[in-house]
Amino acid sequence: MALMRKLPIIHERRILNEGTRFQLEQIDLEFGNGARRTFERMPGSGRGSVMVVPMQDAETVLLVREYAAGLHAYELGLPKGRLERGEDVLEGANREMKEEVGVGARRLTLLTKLALAPTYMANMIHVVLAEDLYPERLEGDEPEELEVVPWRLDELNKLVGREDVTDGRSIAALFVTREYLQQRAREA
Amino acid sequence: MALMRKLPIIHERRILNEGTRFQLEQIDLEFGNGARRTFERMPGSGRGSVMVVPMQDAETVLLVREYAAGLHAYELGLPKGRLERGEDVLEGANREMKEEVGVGARRLTLLTKLALAPTYMANMIHVVLAEDLYPERLEGDEPEELEVVPWRLDELNKLVGREDVTDGRSIAALFVTREYLQQRAREA
Repeated sequence: MALMRKLPIIHERRILNEGTRFQLEQIDLEFGNGARRTFERMPGSGRGSVMVVPMQDAETVLLVREYAAGLHAYELGLPKGRLERGEDVLEGANREMKEEVGVGARRLTLLTKLALAPTYMANMIHVVLAEDLYPERLEGDEPEELEVVPWRLDELNKLVGREDVTDGRSIAALFVTREYLQQRAREA
Repeated sequence: MALMRKLPIIHERRILNEGTRFQLEQIDLEFGNGARRTFERMPGSGRGSVMVVPMQDAETVLLVREYAAGLHAYELGLPKGRLERGEDVLEGANREMKEEVGVGARRLTLLTKLALAPTYMANMIHVVLAEDLYPERLEGDEPEELEVVPWRLDELNKLVGREDVTDGRSIAALFVTREYLQQRAREA
């Protein structure tokens, strides 16, 4: 853990596909040892996004099955979405959950932040634990209502083996939640 | 789990930024309920990529600290990289590990595949467990030698809380590995 390297110097930045949601940037870097490289990265959109872990009870999380255009498949994972203007992280989490799952939460806790692909993307998603749920549905921009699938946290090993469960951040968030809840129970 | 929805029909696909590594595609979709949407997605590069979990011993994984251009920060995570032409997944895992960690493995096991962002990216990374390690270094295209940081699998909760540990897929892969090794030990 000793060595803390100095960050490389960014000599120049060039934005390549201005105006699209998926902006691309080239940066000319100089590393501490003098090595120079040009890397490409995606600066991402400003407001960030949020992933929610809705707990129906102490053992059971509510997953959603949603069409995933990147894979052209229905995928099982946690509800998530981008933050809207003027919204804080917990508000955004509650809104997304009302839109995708049809529940709100009286207790919301920010657990961690997860990066998408740190080597070339700036995107960060906030992981919010939602407890003490109550029914409430908001209209979102989803093209269809999502199927809600309850899953026990002590059966994550079975979840991970499924063909339709591939989202790295959902899987990470579920394990982080399980660790958090176990630790909270031990400390109670 | 009952409901298996029919996939939406793709009426048209348009490639937007041809020729770059980050191709962008628009697809016109029609969902089972007749709702129509235009989604944007990144088809990704063909060969896929690989993430390696190098186990120094039964309890200790070797992490690397690497410059992450997306966040402009040094990040702690698992070694990973894109597969090269003609290389299978296990070969690619061994090569990346030799380049980034300076070890090869006599025992390689494909554990799972993780998607990056299923809703708009096609990228999939193979997660490979590497055991029975031996010293061997290969020259890669890294601008500098990476610092190697051993970490105990029973201390993943401390890892996840660190500022410089954010990669969702690394975190998912580490928990999946721990589950796998625990189950294997129980069955032995």
